[in-house]
Amino acid sequence: MGFKLGILGLGTVGCGTVQLLSNCDGRHPLLEEIEIYRVGVQNPDKPREVELAKGVLTTDLEAIVTDPEIDIVVEVMGGLEPARELMLKAIRNGKHVVTANKAAISRFGDELYTAANQAGVYVMLEASVGGGIPVIQPLKQSLSVNQIQAVTGIINGTTNYILTRMQDEGSSFDDVLADAQKLGYAEADPTADVEGLDAADKIAILASIAFDGGINREDVYCEGIRQISKTDIEYAQKLGFVIKLLGIAKKVNQSSLSVRVHPTLVPSGHPLASINGVNNAIFVEGEPIGEVMFFGPGAGAGATASAVSSDILNLVSQLISLPESSSKDSKYKIPNLNPLLASFHQKDCQLAPPEELVTRFYGRFLTKDQPGVIGKLGTCFGKCGVSLESVVQTGFQDKLAEIVVVTHDVTEGSFHKALDEIRNLEAIDSIPSLLRVL
Amino acid sequence: MGFKLGILGLGTVGCGTVQLLSNCDGRHPLLEEIEIYRVGVQNPDKPREVELAKGVLTTDLEAIVTDPEIDIVVEVMGGLEPARELMLKAIRNGKHVVTANKAAISRFGDELYTAANQAGVYVMLEASVGGGIPVIQPLKQSLSVNQIQAVTGIINGTTNYILTRMQDEGSSFDDVLADAQKLGYAEADPTADVEGLDAADKIAILASIAFDGGINREDVYCEGIRQISKTDIEYAQKLGFVIKLLGIAKKVNQSSLSVRVHPTLVPSGHPLASINGVNNAIFVEGEPIGEVMFFGPGAGAGATASAVSSDILNLVSQLISLPESSSKDSKYKIPNLNPLLASFHQKDCQLAPPEELVTRFYGRFLTKDQPGVIGKLGTCFGKCGVSLESVVQTGFQDKLAEIVVVTHDVTEGSFHKALDEIRNLEAIDSIPSLLRVL
Repeated sequence: MGFKLGILGLGTVGCGTVQLLSNCDGRHPLLEEIEIYRVGVQNPDKPREVELAKGVLTTDLEAIVTDPEIDIVVEVMGGLEPARELMLKAIRNGKHVVTANKAAISRFGDELYTAANQAGVYVMLEASVGGGIPVIQPLKQSLSVNQIQAVTGIINGTTNYILTRMQDEGSSFDDVLADAQKLGYAEADPTADVEGLDAADKIAILASIAFDGGINREDVYCEGIRQISKTDIEYAQKLGFVIKLLGIAKKVNQSSLSVRVHPTLVPSGHPLASINGVNNAIFVEGEPIGEVMFFGPGAGAGATASAVSSDILNLVSQLISLPESSSKDSKYKIPNLNPLLASFHQKDCQLAPPEELVTRFYGRFLTKDQPGVIGKLGTCFGKCGVSLESVVQTGFQDKLAEIVVVTHDVTEGSFHKALDEIRNLEAIDSIPSLLRVL
Repeated sequence: MGFKLGILGLGTVGCGTVQLLSNCDGRHPLLEEIEIYRVGVQNPDKPREVELAKGVLTTDLEAIVTDPEIDIVVEVMGGLEPARELMLKAIRNGKHVVTANKAAISRFGDELYTAANQAGVYVMLEASVGGGIPVIQPLKQSLSVNQIQAVTGIINGTTNYILTRMQDEGSSFDDVLADAQKLGYAEADPTADVEGLDAADKIAILASIAFDGGINREDVYCEGIRQISKTDIEYAQKLGFVIKLLGIAKKVNQSSLSVRVHPTLVPSGHPLASINGVNNAIFVEGEPIGEVMFFGPGAGAGATASAVSSDILNLVSQLISLPESSSKDSKYKIPNLNPLLASFHQKDCQLAPPEELVTRFYGRFLTKDQPGVIGKLGTCFGKCGVSLESVVQTGFQDKLAEIVVVTHDVTEGSFHKALDEIRNLEAIDSIPSLLRVL
């Protein structure tokens, strides 16, 4: 026996994976059946942390995905193209694919899965969400017997690191970001992280698995953390909340979902509230299981290599359990894919229009210091059917009174209608922040 | 297609499983391929929450495990015998087994796995540890690419409920236990829970999977929570700890493990410290993944039914991925078992002798109020190579001074040698409590 890997890319994750697979001691014995046969890179002369046998490194990525010797293609190069094109070609050439590419899977999942199911091969994506945390396979294999109600995750380590430090140190976003960049926790261009785009890729993938249907990535509502101020973090804390960037995928009714990313006030007793630093956690609610949470390192060479390698192990384990005739001889056609390893979308998921979403809100208002302002605010909310959980005048900023409001569950539509009325009140100076509450 | 279940037992877990499988709406579509064909009970006239089709209920459990129509036997009757005997017979009759029985698996795992591997069938045990939390399959399928260093769990909901309430309310063990019994969180005979026996079954199972070898259940060191006083909970809190009953399986060196259950002071920043009430959590450390944790409901009909049903789903999913000839025709011989679904023990795990285990300790001493007592204590510890992290005189009880000591890592042997010397000190009245520190 023996299974040959072709690895596309030798960056952080690629190196981590090669290191893991090169030292099988104390790991699952099946890993010894795996051979790193080819590794494709753009620049073969770049210094790297791993040493490869002669002839393994190549710049010809095309040759990897078409090489009949190769059983499994591991795509850890990232980016949309040529990753998508290479994965499709690998699939059409009868190779199983393991990928860590959340951007490609959240956009081209359907296309890749359809091609894979036609070709009778698997596309495995554990490493695309939550770094090393086992969450994709547990959702498919263990939790899919439940009616899933919601999946809520802290799925971007950089923003969680920034928010944790802002909270612990009372620092501003800009200061912490600059420091995080120096320390390597945030990239030079932090857009994908701080704008929530990375988290949106990941919640789209989690939603598609939990709710068993395609999600149009462009429809995922996305709001980042740039506007979070230390003032809001403080007020949130006083009210019993911490602010986290959450990806939320939630059943709205029988036919539609809400899938979104935004900073959220999380009650401090909630399991997600204590997930700090670069850690990730995914919280799942289902019937009859109740609430479960998966916690761990959301990024890093070792953690992600663990996820990539577990996908490879799962593939090999599945392949050797087939009778000889169907696995090795006619290597490129598995009679029936194992439905808990394969990726399917049973349907396209319908996303509810944003104005129909129901959530609690936190709003901070600056008002002229007049008697009756709270009453006027309350009246506007009441007229629009927004019921309030608390209204607190927290103090003064310059000569303006600062009022913090937390609502009960309302539709986004009603809440924004109320805000439109409130903006027209003569006593209102400005609304410096509006955040959702879990 | 269609897979027929024979369920042994219709208690809490059995009823939960029947309910889940009887309403497949919104769950994995493969569940519709599963038929509840027979359910074996002792007393068919007992009122139950579920309704079964005519002819399904039977008192002839033997007939279920030998019925050629049945593909999968689901053992949810609990207890050692006749559960073991029935599972073995089912296996020998070519049936796959799904069980929630931690007592039987922790004692007879080897025997059952060996029989199953000979017969070419699977034994699935997700529900035996952690209720609904996916942990057995993630350990096998996702984390086994890691070199596992330790598995540490809050794996008994009853004791965690009691300790949480003692902590929150400052109540005594006996008061909380009595109330927990009234509320149904503790059984009339609470021995298995409060003495740590249930947790010991579960940590033995987790250890055998994480370290891929048989664990002799009788060798698992086990200490319960009866002796935990509110005084110790308070002191622990002041020192920055919470007291939890932990199951710990840890690599001691290349060839041996430590597997044990005892109340433990957990640093309050540790992820396990915030697991409260009846919840369970399993914390895994490995290389290169780092630290991951699985959290959720540790018991209950719905949660456990989720775990049982996911095992059934995994089996069915594996069976339908085999070519027709090998799955259905020669139904009772799978050519090669999938090594990530099957249970094997590669070896027998060697447990290190208790005196060689290395841990931190917390000790509370009552001493005569003499000058120099702390010095004398320190000298005894020092002579035996026990280095101290902190020594605090916390106050007085009657006329005795109370001194609380936390050590650095020491072997149990050295610590107990020091204690023997300390007991001989004239100034020492008594040592009301000794606990380990994580």
